[in-house]
Amino acid sequence: MNNINKTSVDEFVTHILNNNISYLSRAITLIESNNSKHQEKATQILEKCLSHASNSIRIGITGVPGVGKSTFIESFGKYLTSIGKKVAVLAIDPSSSIQKGSILGDKTRMSTLALDDNAFIRPSPSGNSLGGVARKTREAITLCEAAGFDIIIIETVGVGQSETTVHSMVDFFLLLKLANAGDELQGIKRGIIEMADTIAINKADGNAEKEAKIAKSEFSRALHLYPKKENNWIPKVLTCSALNNVGIDSIYTIIKEYIALTKENGSFLKKRSEQNKNWLFETINNELKNQFYKNSKVQNLLNLQLKRIENKEINPFQAAKEILKIKR
Amino acid sequence: MNNINKTSVDEFVTHILNNNISYLSRAITLIESNNSKHQEKATQILEKCLSHASNSIRIGITGVPGVGKSTFIESFGKYLTSIGKKVAVLAIDPSSSIQKGSILGDKTRMSTLALDDNAFIRPSPSGNSLGGVARKTREAITLCEAAGFDIIIIETVGVGQSETTVHSMVDFFLLLKLANAGDELQGIKRGIIEMADTIAINKADGNAEKEAKIAKSEFSRALHLYPKKENNWIPKVLTCSALNNVGIDSIYTIIKEYIALTKENGSFLKKRSEQNKNWLFETINNELKNQFYKNSKVQNLLNLQLKRIENKEINPFQAAKEILKIKR
Repeated sequence: MNNINKTSVDEFVTHILNNNISYLSRAITLIESNNSKHQEKATQILEKCLSHASNSIRIGITGVPGVGKSTFIESFGKYLTSIGKKVAVLAIDPSSSIQKGSILGDKTRMSTLALDDNAFIRPSPSGNSLGGVARKTREAITLCEAAGFDIIIIETVGVGQSETTVHSMVDFFLLLKLANAGDELQGIKRGIIEMADTIAINKADGNAEKEAKIAKSEFSRALHLYPKKENNWIPKVLTCSALNNVGIDSIYTIIKEYIALTKENGSFLKKRSEQNKNWLFETINNELKNQFYKNSKVQNLLNLQLKRIENKEINPFQAAKEILKIKR
Repeated sequence: MNNINKTSVDEFVTHILNNNISYLSRAITLIESNNSKHQEKATQILEKCLSHASNSIRIGITGVPGVGKSTFIESFGKYLTSIGKKVAVLAIDPSSSIQKGSILGDKTRMSTLALDDNAFIRPSPSGNSLGGVARKTREAITLCEAAGFDIIIIETVGVGQSETTVHSMVDFFLLLKLANAGDELQGIKRGIIEMADTIAINKADGNAEKEAKIAKSEFSRALHLYPKKENNWIPKVLTCSALNNVGIDSIYTIIKEYIALTKENGSFLKKRSEQNKNWLFETINNELKNQFYKNSKVQNLLNLQLKRIENKEINPFQAAKEILKIKR
């Protein structure tokens, strides 16, 4: 395998279209790079891959730390490959803005799925910019689809702003919960429950099975308090044990029902179309910022103004105004 | 009082600096307007007011619906005016992205405080753009400070993304909680608890008083699990009853302690300086978008490309690229 800089755009594209995972992986690295040469190459690869996007299903999976996401995705992913699907897992880790943490620290995550020839797992640490992650994840989805993956799983931690972003990229949104989830520190915000197309109460095994069933009926009742979804889908609640591979196939059955319903009533394509429109705006807005801040005059004046703000010599509003005057 | 369009910038500024609340209110309306003439005028008013910003304390208050925010702010606000403070309350209502709701629907909110000569209450429905709200709220704070308000309260619902934004504008962040807050649907996300400088368990009255005290010790224990704050402040937990005006003065005592500590160790000014730097970037980024999208060529091609995306004739990435080619 050649160096990332020496491999040509066409080589990348050919190998990605042939489902070569190491080229796919390196192309995503190019997409995530802040190096402008890498970005240029990534853009060219992306453009050539766009017309090869498959008929994939995009599934968002979220849940607080401790809910068993890795075990779940491993079990779910293995099930999917066992029925002949090709599965890509993209993990977004926005961390918390104050307390830095990572869901990606453990290298042994999903180790069995990682060895599966029909699976591809890609963690993406996010840094600070959630918008940036969103854009890059969307591009990574496109590359995975060009590489022939049928099921794209996007994993996120259910504690931040990332869920809204992920929701705006997927067809189906699955929320993983624990039965004894009353603990305030593990709270899931209301908006995430509203977004869920299905809630799976995980770790329904051993002594926790009874509790999980109670939680299931509580959640089913709670979901009735929400207004009906526009696409006519009635969110499902079920229990599962990723550890014992129980209930995993039921989740895929539900997803198939969901896709069938939304494809039939047109909401599947409508949602994809809305998502594409959002992607248009995000791409433009990101590019406007990129073009502006890479200007060296802007960079110099910006550094000066940041110092002046620190010294209380200027207010941010006037500082911005001066920087915006720069001819571009 | 003259028409908003006929009143000159200087008239606005003079009256705002004289604490004329009706002019202040109309200036905020100009700031929130999408009309470009209004925006231009608002900018000029803002610029002239910036140098008159007071030594205010900015307090963020958040809590889920039902926690008693209105009653709390009314009680807290009345206490502050009774000790000679001038209090401005800015309410941000980001709603949830799916289920539209409003904390502002009830016009009788804070009716006693609203009649207080030393208080100013301003609700701001947000629409879709949270970033926009943030910018406008920051500008509204500046106008309120120029009008001589010492305490600026920024109220937000504890269910969305708005807390991070509000946290980036205030000196002190207060989280209101209920004792029996195990209900998942009322969940507060972890990040919000991390941000809190103080947690007040509200509605600690009648039968709920005992429960509130238990919740207080549980939260105090829970907060110990978080890493120490950079500014050396140890977050406080207390109980209060806004209904009976119990514990309200203690909260102000805590805020004074916090301000004294952070002013002494330099973190107060450091935080304000960081916030101002963020404001610089937000102002620039908003203006880049404004300038781009108001271009009529951009608008025309944008509308065309949105239709093409809908008809699946183009992918969003290529559509964006074509729009970005427009000479500006």
